Amino acid sequence: MTEGGDDAVMPATSGGTAESPSGPRLDVVAIGNALVDVLASAKDEDLDGLGLVKGTMALVDQARSESIYAAMGPATEASGGSAANTAAGVAALGGRAAFLGRVADDGFGMAFTHDIRSIGVAFDPTPAPAIPGEAVTGHCLVLVTGDAERTMATHLGVASDFGSVDLHGGHLSSTQVVYLEGYLWEQPSAKAAMREAIEVAHGNDAAVALSLSDPFCVEHHRAEFLELLKGDLEMVFANEDEITLLFGAPDFDAAVGAVTETGVLAVLTRGAAGCVVVTAAGAVEVPAVPVERVVDTTGAGDLFAAGFLYGITNGLSPEASARLGGLGAAEVISHVGARPQADLRALAVEAGLFS
Amino acid sequence: MTEGGDDAVMPATSGGTAESPSGPRLDVVAIGNALVDVLASAKDEDLDGLGLVKGTMALVDQARSESIYAAMGPATEASGGSAANTAAGVAALGGRAAFLGRVADDGFGMAFTHDIRSIGVAFDPTPAPAIPGEAVTGHCLVLVTGDAERTMATHLGVASDFGSVDLHGGHLSSTQVVYLEGYLWEQPSAKAAMREAIEVAHGNDAAVALSLSDPFCVEHHRAEFLELLKGDLEMVFANEDEITLLFGAPDFDAAVGAVTETGVLAVLTRGAAGCVVVTAAGAVEVPAVPVERVVDTTGAGDLFAAGFLYGITNGLSPEASARLGGLGAAEVISHVGARPQADLRALAVEAGLFS
Repeated sequence: MTEGGDDAVMPATSGGTAESPSGPRLDVVAIGNALVDVLASAKDEDLDGLGLVKGTMALVDQARSESIYAAMGPATEASGGSAANTAAGVAALGGRAAFLGRVADDGFGMAFTHDIRSIGVAFDPTPAPAIPGEAVTGHCLVLVTGDAERTMATHLGVASDFGSVDLHGGHLSSTQVVYLEGYLWEQPSAKAAMREAIEVAHGNDAAVALSLSDPFCVEHHRAEFLELLKGDLEMVFANEDEITLLFGAPDFDAAVGAVTETGVLAVLTRGAAGCVVVTAAGAVEVPAVPVERVVDTTGAGDLFAAGFLYGITNGLSPEASARLGGLGAAEVISHVGARPQADLRALAVEAGLFS
Repeated sequence: MTEGGDDAVMPATSGGTAESPSGPRLDVVAIGNALVDVLASAKDEDLDGLGLVKGTMALVDQARSESIYAAMGPATEASGGSAANTAAGVAALGGRAAFLGRVADDGFGMAFTHDIRSIGVAFDPTPAPAIPGEAVTGHCLVLVTGDAERTMATHLGVASDFGSVDLHGGHLSSTQVVYLEGYLWEQPSAKAAMREAIEVAHGNDAAVALSLSDPFCVEHHRAEFLELLKGDLEMVFANEDEITLLFGAPDFDAAVGAVTETGVLAVLTRGAAGCVVVTAAGAVEVPAVPVERVVDTTGAGDLFAAGFLYGITNGLSPEASARLGGLGAAEVISHVGARPQADLRALAVEAGLFS
């Protein structure tokens, strides 16, 4: 399937036309926290005053979420969630994607469901009872500073109840790739569900990909993530900090060496410095797509993953897939919000990545 | 107060430092529908398919709102509401503004309240009981076409229950201007409240301004609006279509002639053709502020009114106030959403309108 001949990466059916009883095989099933982003501009000193660390995501309870919100400026709301953004990006490129995640029966849940479906992603949330004030859809307060960096405080709401019951719909047995969000590893029931998803995926010739999501996820789950790399994963997505932290490596090059030894396809993003793709054939550097003005980096990694996954499941080489990832990331950092606004497919055609 | 000597426009206390027991006199109290905008891109044929008329606002019930939403693409949410946008613009310029309107105890209500307060507008909504699924905060589905024109379908929700009880907080007796949204004239209880607000305003030396809001409002309430111009209003805001329709005039120039005879200060916007301000001293044309790329015209009229009202209540001439209005409109049409995102005050200083 790929130019490099690393045919162990994708199952034999990848890029093919195998169909499930319910329709064509999916490219990607993404599993993650269903969140609505609440985006506002902020100054560096606002972050300090709120005790937030720039560029990171913190999990907060409802009370802390409310106090941060009260200190934020006028905001806009847009659907988010890391793996959900990736699923949206795959669909925006013309791919077949489904999302598994949990929302409540409230306004944010309605908006999340509308937005992901309307971009073409299959999403059938587990019905949840309406318990006003108790069961809320997760939301992520995103403070965007003048340098386009985003600092996030997430109140998971019902997303933290994600479990095996949410793996419904039959999507897992009819997809080329199952993409797991590292953030979900925080919750025991979600972790159990993801281990179940890995088994179902492998039982159905699907590849499993994990995003390391955030340095704090790597810190919390380092041993388990390293264990997953020994047979449970076919792909791993990480940025420079996350992969270096995972292997306790002295620098990025050492981390590249360490991940190469695992035999897992690794997609390692480095912001403006581009990306390194590690396959059985070795490591390839792919430059970033230049952006006229970076407005808001929210979703950059998610859309990089979307482009890469679309490419790899549709016959592109890992290198070309990384170029498609770079295109998705460049589009999403050019505006406020973590979902694509431009026609990604048209941009990819324009860039000569496919016709 | 103004260069043109039209001292009948503003009450004697305008521009002064009179203070109410609760603090300094406000510049503007705005009364209108409290709405959250749900914005999505659309094509002209989408509007046709949904039976919507481009550039207009339609009031719809919950069922129709849901069916339009289901047909819309991925959306973002941002606080809106015509008069609320105007209050936000006055505050963004450094003015003292309050807003009166009704929200429900739901996610949209929470976002609306947060956003308008965080920009500096006084807003203390009447406490409403939580009745899930029945009492929802009003929302406006905004379909933005490629030409940056917006077409709106509004489900008023609890905004339609606005009444005298919502005129609380003492703001009406301590403001230079009370600004009324024409849209509210649709609802009997809101209309009664606005007539009450006019009396309180005049009893406290405040000027009363009415926005004609939309051609459909003018069609529905033409006789009443004409009656209001005979003593109830000191200012009227309208676009070309609205003012021409109001007077049944053959063209815009005839409408300018007709409004001149009323003696009411008229602020008449004409999109890219700028604005005509009609005072006792005559009509003055003010060109529009050029915009590099018009992205979304939602809020253009609201922010024009904001700039004008800030200017006229802070010692600027009607002409300079109209320039400030043009600046507000230019900022808001340069991005998606109906509230200012840039520092309006800094833009006004840059433009030499004040130091």
